Amino acid sequence: MSRTVYVNGQYVPESEASISVFDRGFLFADGIYEVTAVLNGRLMDFEGHVARLHRSLNELNMHLTLNDNALRDIHRQLIEKNDLQEGLVYLQVTRGVADRDFAYPDASTPVTLVAFTQQKAIIDSPLAERGLRVISLPDMRWGRRDIKTVQLLYPSMAKMEAKKRGADDAWLVESGLVTEASSSNAWIVDHDNTLITRELSRSLLHGITRRAVMQLARQHDMKVEERGFTIKEAQNAREAFVTSATSLVYPVISIDQRSVGDGTPGDIAKALRRLYIEAGLSVSSSEAEQGA
Amino acid sequence: MSRTVYVNGQYVPESEASISVFDRGFLFADGIYEVTAVLNGRLMDFEGHVARLHRSLNELNMHLTLNDNALRDIHRQLIEKNDLQEGLVYLQVTRGVADRDFAYPDASTPVTLVAFTQQKAIIDSPLAERGLRVISLPDMRWGRRDIKTVQLLYPSMAKMEAKKRGADDAWLVESGLVTEASSSNAWIVDHDNTLITRELSRSLLHGITRRAVMQLARQHDMKVEERGFTIKEAQNAREAFVTSATSLVYPVISIDQRSVGDGTPGDIAKALRRLYIEAGLSVSSSEAEQGA
Repeated sequence: MSRTVYVNGQYVPESEASISVFDRGFLFADGIYEVTAVLNGRLMDFEGHVARLHRSLNELNMHLTLNDNALRDIHRQLIEKNDLQEGLVYLQVTRGVADRDFAYPDASTPVTLVAFTQQKAIIDSPLAERGLRVISLPDMRWGRRDIKTVQLLYPSMAKMEAKKRGADDAWLVESGLVTEASSSNAWIVDHDNTLITRELSRSLLHGITRRAVMQLARQHDMKVEERGFTIKEAQNAREAFVTSATSLVYPVISIDQRSVGDGTPGDIAKALRRLYIEAGLSVSSSEAEQGA
Repeated sequence: MSRTVYVNGQYVPESEASISVFDRGFLFADGIYEVTAVLNGRLMDFEGHVARLHRSLNELNMHLTLNDNALRDIHRQLIEKNDLQEGLVYLQVTRGVADRDFAYPDASTPVTLVAFTQQKAIIDSPLAERGLRVISLPDMRWGRRDIKTVQLLYPSMAKMEAKKRGADDAWLVESGLVTEASSSNAWIVDHDNTLITRELSRSLLHGITRRAVMQLARQHDMKVEERGFTIKEAQNAREAFVTSATSLVYPVISIDQRSVGDGTPGDIAKALRRLYIEAGLSVSSSEAEQGA
């Protein structure tokens, strides 16, 4: 490990990348984040992630002084300094450093900005090949899941519970309907080949990849319906899959130990994954041509 | 500011008290905490706080290698190094440092332990004198409020909303019943002088001061009932108050702009506060006599 990490204006070796114990991200989980995938050394859907970052900041009355170009520059410098071809850039903003008090510090308190890279095989992913086994769990997260905060303990617990039960991930259920997966949006495909994913609300994250895949599906004349569905409907669906920035599209092959379809990755999920990668690579290369 | 802060075995000036950006407390809110009041330089209800710390650790499968004597020693050293007469010691434990992954790191990963002091006028508190004005807000926290995690963004938001509306704090309501206040337990006193506070469950924090005040009340032949109540019942109660480690007992004088009782601090709340301080000071002095 010898990554270069960005902390409040400085690029430092990861062993020196530290923040104050009085950072509100550490004491109050008073922070938000974004994860942007990198393919061929280029950022995917960066505009979407920055737009959602601004939405999270606004919802929490946090003020970032850096503009979007500066944010993009930080991402690009991290990609370059870490020679990242495929993986992700993680960005976190917190309400900054102040003596511990539930009340927010003065609005002039500078936010904390941290960013780092992670290598990850996104295109040649064994999980995409094999498909995910998921379990269902009650959704016990807070009521504002549309804000991408670092309050991620329950998703972590859900992943561990899934692992313990021999599965890969959990789908979260509230009032009988699936909200989303522990860190991705949940989809099913019905027997008329209609794609179904839950409508946006405060109950789930407004996935950037969810939106991109929805556009892609419509461009390819697939029908998309935005509504909630039960675990039972998902088990009986033709296909199931999840979308997120770094999984892109992962087929789901079983839910609570019941096979979905024939228990292998579905054709529509595989097609969407391929289309999304192609679109990402072509955007990346057009960006590269512009010298962007 | 020139406090001495404890970070993973070291006592350092607060300006040098830092943790890695890869700490799971910072990235996932994967951490728990305790706040112990200090009166006359002595810890109050320390055993209760340590017992609850162990409960939180167990619920989250976190493993602390330090024993309780070592924890007490850290608290005492901080009190001494910071010459703290009245205030609190804050202690936080996180699942430690690891590259970002929702799944927990290997169980051998050392936890992070941070502790610091804050000065606070606990006995001569203007808020205790005046009484709190509270508003009601929906309880939008996660489903395991019995675990004292650092996922405190919603309580922070609730305090800010209260301030914005000219109040001091918020009482949180779920399914029509008050769970607790944003960072304290909520109580009312009915017209038969029965003390009422919500029964323990996953919906609220198992307050150490709540328990101490309950014991004290019973010792003084007051009736205590553990059950939920509505905002309306609280507004029509004889008295209302909150309990927490550093407020001890604060009377509540209005709820959603409706006076409770005659709109001044209630006699029972004031008596409980006095009794609790006396008990705390006598324990403190007996501890002091033992040279403990």
